[in-house]
Amino acid sequence: MELDWLLAPPLPAALPRQRVIYHRLREAILAGRLAPGTRLPASRSLAATLNIARNTVLFAYEQLMAEGCLVGNRQGTRVAALPLHPAIRSRLADARGTSLQLSARAQGALRPDPTTEGATLAFAPGVPDYGAFPFRSWRACLARAWSDASSSQLGYAALGGDPALREALAVHLTTVRGLAVQATQIVITSGTQAALDLCSRFLADDGDIIWAENPGYRSARIAFQLAGLRIHDLPVDAEGLAPSMDDWRKHPPRLIMVTPSHQYPTGRVMSLSRRLALIECARQSGTWIIEDDYDSEFRRGGPAPPALFGLQPEVPVVYVGTFSKTLFPGLRLGYLVLPQAIAADFARAAAEATRPGQGIEQRALADFIQRGHYTTHLRRMRSRYAARQAALRAALHATFGARFQLTGGEAGLHLVLWLPQRLRDTLVAARAAQMGLGVRPLRHYTKPPLRCNGLVLGYGNLQEANIPECVRRLAVAIDDHRCKP
Amino acid sequence: MELDWLLAPPLPAALPRQRVIYHRLREAILAGRLAPGTRLPASRSLAATLNIARNTVLFAYEQLMAEGCLVGNRQGTRVAALPLHPAIRSRLADARGTSLQLSARAQGALRPDPTTEGATLAFAPGVPDYGAFPFRSWRACLARAWSDASSSQLGYAALGGDPALREALAVHLTTVRGLAVQATQIVITSGTQAALDLCSRFLADDGDIIWAENPGYRSARIAFQLAGLRIHDLPVDAEGLAPSMDDWRKHPPRLIMVTPSHQYPTGRVMSLSRRLALIECARQSGTWIIEDDYDSEFRRGGPAPPALFGLQPEVPVVYVGTFSKTLFPGLRLGYLVLPQAIAADFARAAAEATRPGQGIEQRALADFIQRGHYTTHLRRMRSRYAARQAALRAALHATFGARFQLTGGEAGLHLVLWLPQRLRDTLVAARAAQMGLGVRPLRHYTKPPLRCNGLVLGYGNLQEANIPECVRRLAVAIDDHRCKP
Repeated sequence: MELDWLLAPPLPAALPRQRVIYHRLREAILAGRLAPGTRLPASRSLAATLNIARNTVLFAYEQLMAEGCLVGNRQGTRVAALPLHPAIRSRLADARGTSLQLSARAQGALRPDPTTEGATLAFAPGVPDYGAFPFRSWRACLARAWSDASSSQLGYAALGGDPALREALAVHLTTVRGLAVQATQIVITSGTQAALDLCSRFLADDGDIIWAENPGYRSARIAFQLAGLRIHDLPVDAEGLAPSMDDWRKHPPRLIMVTPSHQYPTGRVMSLSRRLALIECARQSGTWIIEDDYDSEFRRGGPAPPALFGLQPEVPVVYVGTFSKTLFPGLRLGYLVLPQAIAADFARAAAEATRPGQGIEQRALADFIQRGHYTTHLRRMRSRYAARQAALRAALHATFGARFQLTGGEAGLHLVLWLPQRLRDTLVAARAAQMGLGVRPLRHYTKPPLRCNGLVLGYGNLQEANIPECVRRLAVAIDDHRCKP
Repeated sequence: MELDWLLAPPLPAALPRQRVIYHRLREAILAGRLAPGTRLPASRSLAATLNIARNTVLFAYEQLMAEGCLVGNRQGTRVAALPLHPAIRSRLADARGTSLQLSARAQGALRPDPTTEGATLAFAPGVPDYGAFPFRSWRACLARAWSDASSSQLGYAALGGDPALREALAVHLTTVRGLAVQATQIVITSGTQAALDLCSRFLADDGDIIWAENPGYRSARIAFQLAGLRIHDLPVDAEGLAPSMDDWRKHPPRLIMVTPSHQYPTGRVMSLSRRLALIECARQSGTWIIEDDYDSEFRRGGPAPPALFGLQPEVPVVYVGTFSKTLFPGLRLGYLVLPQAIAADFARAAAEATRPGQGIEQRALADFIQRGHYTTHLRRMRSRYAARQAALRAALHATFGARFQLTGGEAGLHLVLWLPQRLRDTLVAARAAQMGLGVRPLRHYTKPPLRCNGLVLGYGNLQEANIPECVRRLAVAIDDHRCKP
């Protein structure tokens, strides 16, 4: 019997020879190339043929025997009689045929323009200034958390998250955001996307209707779709989400997703009377409101509008916050603030569904907040981002004059530059990408029949000195955009 | 107008007085206690009444005006006409009434016996030895990752996870686990639960059937239920999952979840012929197999059985691994190994659905593996856990003799002690919990009509010296269990 191929090149670099022999023999047996019952040479003889130590062969034989690929007795070593393809194939009448495919819902999450694309380019939205992150004080907090690490930080997280972090966050939200919140109402999540996923599944059932802002946050839609929700898109006017009585009657929502402090992406702020009306209608119709307050920390000019959560007692509102923009996205920590009536059950269901952890990072973040590093950092970034926005506005004005409308400057890390219909945003963005700019077309956030046309310009991670040059390139992209990218 | 209550005790400790006034005024307006049109005293006069600085009042007034709660003109400051309860209430005919409730599927994730319960007690299953964790080398890897941190580690994770970690893991799985895996086939997840959630949603659609082992891993069921899958429970015999032709015909699965290396919780090992038959049937019926190889690292006595993944080329198998037991659960890093045909799309869909991060930890883990710390730690823990299991077996034998059957010792961190029907496992476990023992009844893992009766005894975080005493307490709990807990 010819077994030279057992050590024929190319040999995998990382594997010792005994494992090469084992793998190749096993593969040949499982593929049926070595038929059941085939007798293999004695280990001593194979070792001589291959010019290797007998133990090397013995290892492979023994392992394959232990697995059931080979059977051995006094007469020698044979290939086992295994249930390979043809024997079983005939037993299955209703074979659906081989199909290595993703589910329909997973296919729905695939897009021609992934959210992750262009995140490192100038103007990419939603990217904070990584260079300004207070590495030293953060690492000191992490080091302290590691020094004190006990099994409760190394194991799965406590219900709702680390108690010290929930407490620190409750104080922070009360004093800085004006929410009268108890620690027990907070559930730590691994970021906004995880929070939206939990809300979609824990506050609504498969087939329920959710209202979404149009234009709106794309990643939220994926959470809704994967949770089996039916999305009803609602336009956003100057006062925020604008539902009609028809919407309430014909598309009664189980959930409403809003970004009232700074609508994403247009940057509009929901008026107080619209807020109260929304809460009242939601209360009457048994609807949950998900309030994503994603950019409220970087507010400019005047006090922050009050959050829906806490506007009145026991409102049917769940408040979503994150540290992705205020610290860094990779941290993967965010939070939900829930009405007391459901907070404990929500925390328990979340623990079962996600088995969260990151206890060390949670403890470090609690420390970071308690020592005042967090508010110091926020204050510093608020003025830094304000300066960047001013520089961007100045550069846009210098280049375009009053040609294009700008919205969204009251908070956050981006502006929206509205374009006339003849300058199609997707084409401009494609041309801009070739020139190293990560501007996002408003169309990507918009569902038909609405047609928003404009560019989202992130300035969070854009140095002031580079802004004029980036705007010049943008002007070229706008002029050039008819050249097919 | 009497406004003394604006600063009446008790005053919230954390808030400055201007915010107390702001909050109390706002609350009174939004609750309708201050009617629309009500005129407020001039700031100077209110300041005098309350004996505070005028600026303190002005702050509150201005913020409330900015929010739309107050309107001001030359005649003074008045409460705005806001759309409060009664006005809107009448407009909604089909009011469903207030209901602050979780969804049906969230309620389904709530259990009388939470998974997190008793995790710190002796014998709690699935808990590794936290004390043996190589803190020093791990922290050194973390420190290096922080020193080299770039925006790609601080931002959202790269598609599929950190490239260095995927590469290191591919080499590790090839050399240690015998899987011929490329880095591009690996998707880093935040642990096994997240991996099962992704598999449930990306490999199956709502309403599809999934086969689950009975008894089986409880948390997996929650992932399946929340993904809208219909669970078909299959018994496990000495050779592993035992489907009949009827199961294939009447309950055709889209997914099959198995733990072939070390069935959870019984510890049985799936035979090779059962493995091959399962793969062949899955292939023929267009079914995905989820292979959770959760405990294969701590194998004792003889070579590890081959994973389903890699047993044959292009098998419809997704391999689930985790660092929760080999390092620590709070790290929240695990991985999926996917057939090349779907790996890239799966990674993209996962990025959209979960927006993963933890770039620093991923880079540190890559470093930890590449420097050999991981295999060193595994080797060390393998012999340590083996010693613990031996000590536990000896103590059980000394106390119970051959009264009870033991299974599951070939790998992992737990043994199963089977009890006769007259000693009901749930009652014994309840009594044991009172005595500080975290044993889990087998019934918790079992679905009717099957009736498994026994105790899962975790020994991962149990010091050898304490084992005899813990077993003595267990014996008392077994004797005592009829006393209603």
